[in-house]
Amino acid sequence: MAKINDNFIKIPATYLFSEIAKRVENYKAANPQADIIRMGIGDVTRPLPKAAVEALKAAADEQLASATFRGYGPEQGYDFLRETIVKSDYEPLGIKLDTDEVFVSDGAKSDTGNIGDILSRDNIIAVTDPVYPVYVDTNVMAGRGGNLAADGKWSNIQYLPCLPENGFEPQLPKGKIDVVYLCYPNNPTGTTLTKAQLKKWVDYALENDVLILFDAAYKAFITESDVPHSIYEIAGAKECAIEFCSFSKTAGFTGTRCGYTVVPKELKATAENGEKIALNRLWNRRQTTKFNGTAYVIQRAAEAVYSPEGKRQVQESIDYYMNNARIIKNGLETAGYKVFGAVNAPYIWLKTPAGLKSWEFFDYLLTEKNIVGTPGVGFGPSGEGFLRLTAFGSTENTIRAVERLKK
Amino acid sequence: MAKINDNFIKIPATYLFSEIAKRVENYKAANPQADIIRMGIGDVTRPLPKAAVEALKAAADEQLASATFRGYGPEQGYDFLRETIVKSDYEPLGIKLDTDEVFVSDGAKSDTGNIGDILSRDNIIAVTDPVYPVYVDTNVMAGRGGNLAADGKWSNIQYLPCLPENGFEPQLPKGKIDVVYLCYPNNPTGTTLTKAQLKKWVDYALENDVLILFDAAYKAFITESDVPHSIYEIAGAKECAIEFCSFSKTAGFTGTRCGYTVVPKELKATAENGEKIALNRLWNRRQTTKFNGTAYVIQRAAEAVYSPEGKRQVQESIDYYMNNARIIKNGLETAGYKVFGAVNAPYIWLKTPAGLKSWEFFDYLLTEKNIVGTPGVGFGPSGEGFLRLTAFGSTENTIRAVERLKK
Repeated sequence: MAKINDNFIKIPATYLFSEIAKRVENYKAANPQADIIRMGIGDVTRPLPKAAVEALKAAADEQLASATFRGYGPEQGYDFLRETIVKSDYEPLGIKLDTDEVFVSDGAKSDTGNIGDILSRDNIIAVTDPVYPVYVDTNVMAGRGGNLAADGKWSNIQYLPCLPENGFEPQLPKGKIDVVYLCYPNNPTGTTLTKAQLKKWVDYALENDVLILFDAAYKAFITESDVPHSIYEIAGAKECAIEFCSFSKTAGFTGTRCGYTVVPKELKATAENGEKIALNRLWNRRQTTKFNGTAYVIQRAAEAVYSPEGKRQVQESIDYYMNNARIIKNGLETAGYKVFGAVNAPYIWLKTPAGLKSWEFFDYLLTEKNIVGTPGVGFGPSGEGFLRLTAFGSTENTIRAVERLKK
Repeated sequence: MAKINDNFIKIPATYLFSEIAKRVENYKAANPQADIIRMGIGDVTRPLPKAAVEALKAAADEQLASATFRGYGPEQGYDFLRETIVKSDYEPLGIKLDTDEVFVSDGAKSDTGNIGDILSRDNIIAVTDPVYPVYVDTNVMAGRGGNLAADGKWSNIQYLPCLPENGFEPQLPKGKIDVVYLCYPNNPTGTTLTKAQLKKWVDYALENDVLILFDAAYKAFITESDVPHSIYEIAGAKECAIEFCSFSKTAGFTGTRCGYTVVPKELKATAENGEKIALNRLWNRRQTTKFNGTAYVIQRAAEAVYSPEGKRQVQESIDYYMNNARIIKNGLETAGYKVFGAVNAPYIWLKTPAGLKSWEFFDYLLTEKNIVGTPGVGFGPSGEGFLRLTAFGSTENTIRAVERLKK
C-alpha cells in the first residue's frame, strides 16, 4: 500500500501569497475601478540586461548546428560560468574558491530547499524570525518540524526573533542547535548584519559544530561598507557555512532561473559513526543524481551578466530599485511611520500603526489606499505587527503609492 | 553538531559513467591515434529543432522590454505549455487530462528523483532490473535502500529481473511492495511492454494499492502499434500511476532542460491515519515550495516543439536515430550477436559473446574495436553479461562501428 510522506499534510494549506491574491481579487471584483498598486510579491519588473539576452540568443543559435550543439552539460554547471563566478564574485572580496566549490543551479529556492537532502533528519534547525517560508516548510516536509503550535511555531524548530528591540540582530541560541539559516541582506526585513555581527555567528558555529546556511540572494543591493557580501569574508566561515546566491533579483532572472551555491571543500559534518564528512562531496552526489544541470543557454546568459556591459546594466536596475527604496523609506518616515530596511536591500519592513495586526493593516492598505503589501506575520510569529513593501515596482508607481500613504 | 544524511555515504562512490570515462581516457593516453566511436552515454547529437530555437530567441527578445518581461512564472509551468501538452500528447490517445494534472519541470531526472519527497520513507520500492540508476540511488538517499549486498542489490529494494528468458517482461512481485518504477520503452534494454502486458501491471497496482511511477521518456521512439505511448491508455491507470515525460531525447533538450510529470487528480496514497490523500496536491505543494518553475524562454521552446514545423523537425531526428538503431541491430544480428531493443527505442541491448562479463566485453570493444558502450551490469545485477549501445550518434559513425563489429 503506497504511503504518503505525512509531513506534507501537517503544513497548513493556505499559502501566504495565494491568500493575498484572493483578498486582492475579491476587492477588485467589488471595486472594479480601483487603481491598485502592488508592492507585495518580491518579483522584479525591469527587463533582463541586454547583454544577457544577446548571450542567450547567441547560445540558442549554437544549438542549431551539430558542430556547436550542446547536449548534457555538467550537472554542477559549465566551467565558463563557475570560473566567472569565482573571479567576479569572490576574488575581489579576497576570497579564494576552486571552481568545484561552486554549483550552478536553477535558483536559490531549489538549492535552499534541496540542501536538506544531504543532512540527517535528526538535526535541530534554527531560523531567524520572521523568515523566508521555504526554509521552514522544506524542513517540515523532511520531518524536522515536529508539530505546529497555536503560536505559529513548529515544536522542533528554534526561532530567533528579529525585532526593533534587538536591532534585528538574531541572538545566539540558548539551546542546542545543529543548523541555522541566515539570510543577509534579509528577506523580509531588509536589515543586515555587519561583519562584526556576522563574525559572532561564525565563531559560534565553529565552536559548536553548527552548520550555517547563508542565503546571500540580495547581496548586490548592499550599499554600506561594513556589510559583508559573502559570509566567506569572515575568517573560518569556509569550515562552517554554505552560501546560496541568485541572479533573480540582481539581474532580473526571476523568470529565467539561475543561481549558484558554494560548498567549500573544508566544510564537514558528522556521520553516525562520528566521522567528519565533506559536504561538497555529498552535495555533488545529490546534484549529479537528482539534477541534470541548468540549461546551457541560461548559463551563457548568466555569464554575460558579468561582462562590462552586463555589469553596467545590472547596476542600473539595482540603482533604480534602491532609489525606489529610498523614496518609500523617506516618504513613510515623513508620514510618521516606523520603517526598517531599505538601505542595503529592496525591502521595506514597516511597523503597523496603532497596534494593528499585520492582516488588519494589509486590509486597511488594500481598501483605503489601494496598495498591496505582504503581511509580516506571513513570514513567522515575530512578523506580527509588521508589513513588507518591496521596491521592485516602477518609480512612477512607487511615488504614487507613497503619496497615498502620506495622506 | 550538524549531522549528515548517512544514506549518502552508503552509495558506492564510483559512478558508472565516470568509470567509463576514466577507462576511455587511459586507453586514449596510451593510444593517442585511436579513432574511438562513442556509443555509451545516451546523449543526443542532432541539433535542436529550428522551431524551438526560433521560439527561444523570440521569448528572449520579450525579456528586453518591461511590457513583455516575464518574472516569476507559475511553479507548475505556464498554461500555454500545459494546455499544449494535454492537447498534443494525450487527447490524440483518447486520454482526457486537466492542465493542473501536468507539471512542467527541468527534466524527468529531477522529477523521478524528487517524487520520493512526497512518499513515506517506509514504502517498499520495486524496480525492474536492469534499471536507470537514478530510481535506485534516490531511494537509497531517502533511506529506502537498506544495505548493499555483495550481489549488488539493496536489501530493502525488490528487483524484478528482465532477461531474454522472460522476454524482458518483469513478473509481478511475489512479496509485498508499495511503489514500482516502470520505464517503457525501457532504458537500458530498449524493450517495451504491450498494452496487454502493461494492463497486468495496472490491474495488479489497483488491486494491491501499489503506486506505479511510469517513465515514458522514450515514448516518441515507439513504432509498433500495440505499445502504449502513455500508461493512461490503460483503464484505471489514473488511479495508480504517475507518468514522467521529457523533451530530452525526442526534441534534443538534453542541454536545454524541460520535461513534465502527470499526476492525475484521482491518484491517491495512504496517510498514517489511513486517510487517502490526493498526490496531485502533495506534488503541487512540493513544487511550489522547492522549485520556482522552468525558465519562460525554455517553456516557449518546448511549446514550439508541438508546432507543425517543430513536429516535422522532431520526427526527422527520431527517424534518423531509429535508422541508426536498425543499422546496429541488423549489422550485429548478421555478425551473430544476440540483440534486443532497437525497434521502439534508441537503445540496443547486446548479449556479450562467449560468456564475457559486461566489463570484460566493454574492455574488449574499447581496445580491439575502439568502440565505447555501456556495461550492462552498471544498470543492475541482471545487466551482467550485457552491454548497451545507443543510436544517438551520426549515421556515418554508426555504420563504421557496425563494420568494425562485424569483423
